[in-house]
Amino acid sequence: MPQRPVLDFWYDFASPYSYLAAMRIEPLAEAAGVEIRWRPFLLGPIFAGQGWASSPFNLFPSKGRYMWRDVTREAARLALPLKRPDPFPQNSLTAARLALALREKGLASAFTRAVFAAEFGEGRSISDITVISDILRELGVDVASTVSSAQAAAVKSRLRAETEEARTRGIFGAPTFLCADGEMFWGNDRLEQALAWATGERPAGLL
Amino acid sequence: MPQRPVLDFWYDFASPYSYLAAMRIEPLAEAAGVEIRWRPFLLGPIFAGQGWASSPFNLFPSKGRYMWRDVTREAARLALPLKRPDPFPQNSLTAARLALALREKGLASAFTRAVFAAEFGEGRSISDITVISDILRELGVDVASTVSSAQAAAVKSRLRAETEEARTRGIFGAPTFLCADGEMFWGNDRLEQALAWATGERPAGLL
Repeated sequence: MPQRPVLDFWYDFASPYSYLAAMRIEPLAEAAGVEIRWRPFLLGPIFAGQGWASSPFNLFPSKGRYMWRDVTREAARLALPLKRPDPFPQNSLTAARLALALREKGLASAFTRAVFAAEFGEGRSISDITVISDILRELGVDVASTVSSAQAAAVKSRLRAETEEARTRGIFGAPTFLCADGEMFWGNDRLEQALAWATGERPAGLL
Repeated sequence: MPQRPVLDFWYDFASPYSYLAAMRIEPLAEAAGVEIRWRPFLLGPIFAGQGWASSPFNLFPSKGRYMWRDVTREAARLALPLKRPDPFPQNSLTAARLALALREKGLASAFTRAVFAAEFGEGRSISDITVISDILRELGVDVASTVSSAQAAAVKSRLRAETEEARTRGIFGAPTFLCADGEMFWGNDRLEQALAWATGERPAGLL
């Protein structure tokens, strides 16, 4: 059986547009015959490298107001619930480490969707250990050992390495979709194009 | 005959995504039964208000590299020519004043498309008076009197007022589409949604 093409899905748990992408990527990837690699990372260090101490949606209020309205419209269009978490952005460190720890068990996808659904669908705090515990129990994994494994030095350094890889690959926002040939697509709006590119489709006339 | 709904199309002549929108807005608006108001303005003062001395595509190199690749793909998809102007961004002041001066004659649309086609389709300099003169001649207007009229104090202050209106309405980038009820859509990707909103369509489930 030929190997399916792979698409790397880079996301930050604090990113609203990553929520939209995470909730819809699997059926679209399945239909396209593409394998998704879940790549949680932290935008914070990348933003800090650009001189930003917070989300651009907070630093630039007009852009932030617009973003929430646009996400509201997009969530409605995709029939996804939306409740704005407070504070925004949420601290995504614990969730990102857990996603990496759970990836080895094939649970990154289910865990990621559950975290995003709690955060942006219900407005819950993803740095709250009771929220995280509920999600882990729901996934059927042992809460204490999973939380503990996500605090291991190997997972911490893995997340730093992933974030550094994102930066060196030129990732500046989330979600970002990276094809095996390096072609980059930024934003939930580009998910369909990224999947098509991964399968070898090209826009007519592209040099 | 009932009045057609109106959509304000705010654009900066230096903006690559405004090029894509300008080249395709008229047939889409016609099909939707929407009247387009051409609203040239200057992003420079708005960016300056955010502490940016240049285009974010220059200030944030990763974002800039991505933007040019994305615009290349989008132009191919839309069958539009693309040649990157040098320098980028171009100085859009003269073109914006001319567009305002020509708007009274119903020529803003044709002039705007011609400027964008020269700038991003052929890579020509839009602050070069020979480029502008070619465009004006092609439009069938008198070059000398049109260039002169665009330098009138009334046009200069009109452009400042338009840019200030953009800022107070919360516009932070271009293109931006504003419906009569204040609903805002940012980016060439949202043109279809903006037109649909202008005609009264709403995403199912939108609160």
